[in-house]
Amino acid sequence: MNNGRFKRIVRLTMITKFSNQFHLIHPIALAPMALSSGGALAAACAKAGALGLVGGGYGDLAWTHREYTLATQLLKNDAASHARLGCGFITWKLDENAEALDWVLTQKPCAIMLSFGDPRPYATSVAESGAKLICQVQRLEQVAQAIEAGASVIVAQGGEAGGHGANALEGRSTFTMVPEIADYLAAHSPNTLLLAAGGVADGRGLAAALMLGADGVLIGSRLWATTESLAAQGAKTQATQTNGDGTARSQVFDILRRKNWPAPYDFRAIRNDLHRALEGNVAELKDNPDEARASYDAGVKAGDFSRAHATVGEVVGLITDVPSAADVIARMTQQAQGLLAN
Amino acid sequence: MNNGRFKRIVRLTMITKFSNQFHLIHPIALAPMALSSGGALAAACAKAGALGLVGGGYGDLAWTHREYTLATQLLKNDAASHARLGCGFITWKLDENAEALDWVLTQKPCAIMLSFGDPRPYATSVAESGAKLICQVQRLEQVAQAIEAGASVIVAQGGEAGGHGANALEGRSTFTMVPEIADYLAAHSPNTLLLAAGGVADGRGLAAALMLGADGVLIGSRLWATTESLAAQGAKTQATQTNGDGTARSQVFDILRRKNWPAPYDFRAIRNDLHRALEGNVAELKDNPDEARASYDAGVKAGDFSRAHATVGEVVGLITDVPSAADVIARMTQQAQGLLAN
Repeated sequence: MNNGRFKRIVRLTMITKFSNQFHLIHPIALAPMALSSGGALAAACAKAGALGLVGGGYGDLAWTHREYTLATQLLKNDAASHARLGCGFITWKLDENAEALDWVLTQKPCAIMLSFGDPRPYATSVAESGAKLICQVQRLEQVAQAIEAGASVIVAQGGEAGGHGANALEGRSTFTMVPEIADYLAAHSPNTLLLAAGGVADGRGLAAALMLGADGVLIGSRLWATTESLAAQGAKTQATQTNGDGTARSQVFDILRRKNWPAPYDFRAIRNDLHRALEGNVAELKDNPDEARASYDAGVKAGDFSRAHATVGEVVGLITDVPSAADVIARMTQQAQGLLAN
Repeated sequence: MNNGRFKRIVRLTMITKFSNQFHLIHPIALAPMALSSGGALAAACAKAGALGLVGGGYGDLAWTHREYTLATQLLKNDAASHARLGCGFITWKLDENAEALDWVLTQKPCAIMLSFGDPRPYATSVAESGAKLICQVQRLEQVAQAIEAGASVIVAQGGEAGGHGANALEGRSTFTMVPEIADYLAAHSPNTLLLAAGGVADGRGLAAALMLGADGVLIGSRLWATTESLAAQGAKTQATQTNGDGTARSQVFDILRRKNWPAPYDFRAIRNDLHRALEGNVAELKDNPDEARASYDAGVKAGDFSRAHATVGEVVGLITDVPSAADVIARMTQQAQGLLAN
């Protein structure tokens, strides 16, 4: 009230059911990207007011223990942020060995996210730990199983997402799947929340996701390309130089990495030289992978991303720098608030 | 001003650069769907305040002449609506025979839309007719050519769209392509407008497209499933019963229909029984198509859509009825206005 005049401060907020229920400042979750969403990135997102999900991925206990513990230590004097810490896993790998999930549940995470498989066998242990269950789906038909598992949140992952997702024949896109699942939840499970995943990297995407009926967004690629992410620096640099035409979804990198993913899942990454050389004949690559694997392994060892994979989605075209996670979240929310206010 | 009190009427509008430049009431264009967007549908859209584009498709002069003339007749006492009439063509077919385009240009359409090929050979004749040029693209890399052709509008068509589009390896999604092309246009051709196509069927999609940076939307499937559309009634009925998981993109129907489309284009339609039977071995289908074509032809003849194709996109999951085009446009704009006002 300088000089007796009132100054009206309009503080724009994007409070949604998701931000409310998860005690977040922003309706944003970090995608639990295997090997990239480590403790530092999850803690940075939680501190910035988003949901920080460690990428438990394939369920390696040592990795999960180390990174989740790091996040806990980074947030030890910040109870509000620590209450925004959780972990995600690849469900079909838990079916082989769930010891990493079992250990994380002893740490009282606020949420467990499961993707790529049937979540129902894990529903009881997650619920008994006090964690909320978040289930990622790639098709409408998977939603009923997630509701049966007691999911608090459904993540609708479009095929534009980086990393694993449903293949071209079975996959869906974010733009059509979000409103369709929103309608399904309204009719069948109105208390279940919905996040959009795949294609969101800025405030335009966040605002669009809310318009389509989501309660928030799950962010992969944009938070992968941050200082705190454990992704290789060479991969991050390549991503900042690649436009959105430059990724592809296929089985190529899973075959090269000796990952035995079940149908209908495959993998989106930057369509580098090695991918282009192999993508035209995946059946032959499956039958005779040795030479290509040797080239891939050498690429990984050398940090040569014309052969090694950089795991980002189509939205890489909107990523031109490698800032901190806090900067990403601040830019995204400020831009979305501006768009939604006009 | 009943009883001396003011009553303030807030009339919400969605005026965009696109609606302004094309003298539209709503920032919506009918997709010029070959054999479905006939004169009645184009005229109905123009009357409802949208851009009505007749589906000139493969460039058949007799069909285009008949349907464009019908639209003109339906709008003959309505100059404002007639000024919203245009036509679209498949560019690579014009390279074989452009007589339908040449004839339409004598009719003074407000716009010509070209998709699937290099638009530059047609830039001069379109410009000299007074029509605005609209170029549809499936990838960012195609935008420069469209700008060179003098396009007033770029349509960013995501792979979720029904009918022809870029295949899974080369294609993009609406959610990531719209903001990326918006940024490209802002930097390289700021007067060129942008429409989102693929996945928009209601006000949520329209509002989301505007948030992503589009100046409007191009609507296919939702206007295909209207009373005025020339699509077969059996196809429309099947669409209302199919959810968004139930479409697929492949070369199957182009092979069955003896359509020789160039790379990288293929076709999305309802994934019916015949498609499912053939989709696993497209190479074999290409080599020995006769038996499958006989089954397809019989399906078309019988109106059996377990074999004949119903050309809709992933957004079919939001389509549950077959109203008039005017109803579709009214619902879409009212819902979008409500979302954008809150």
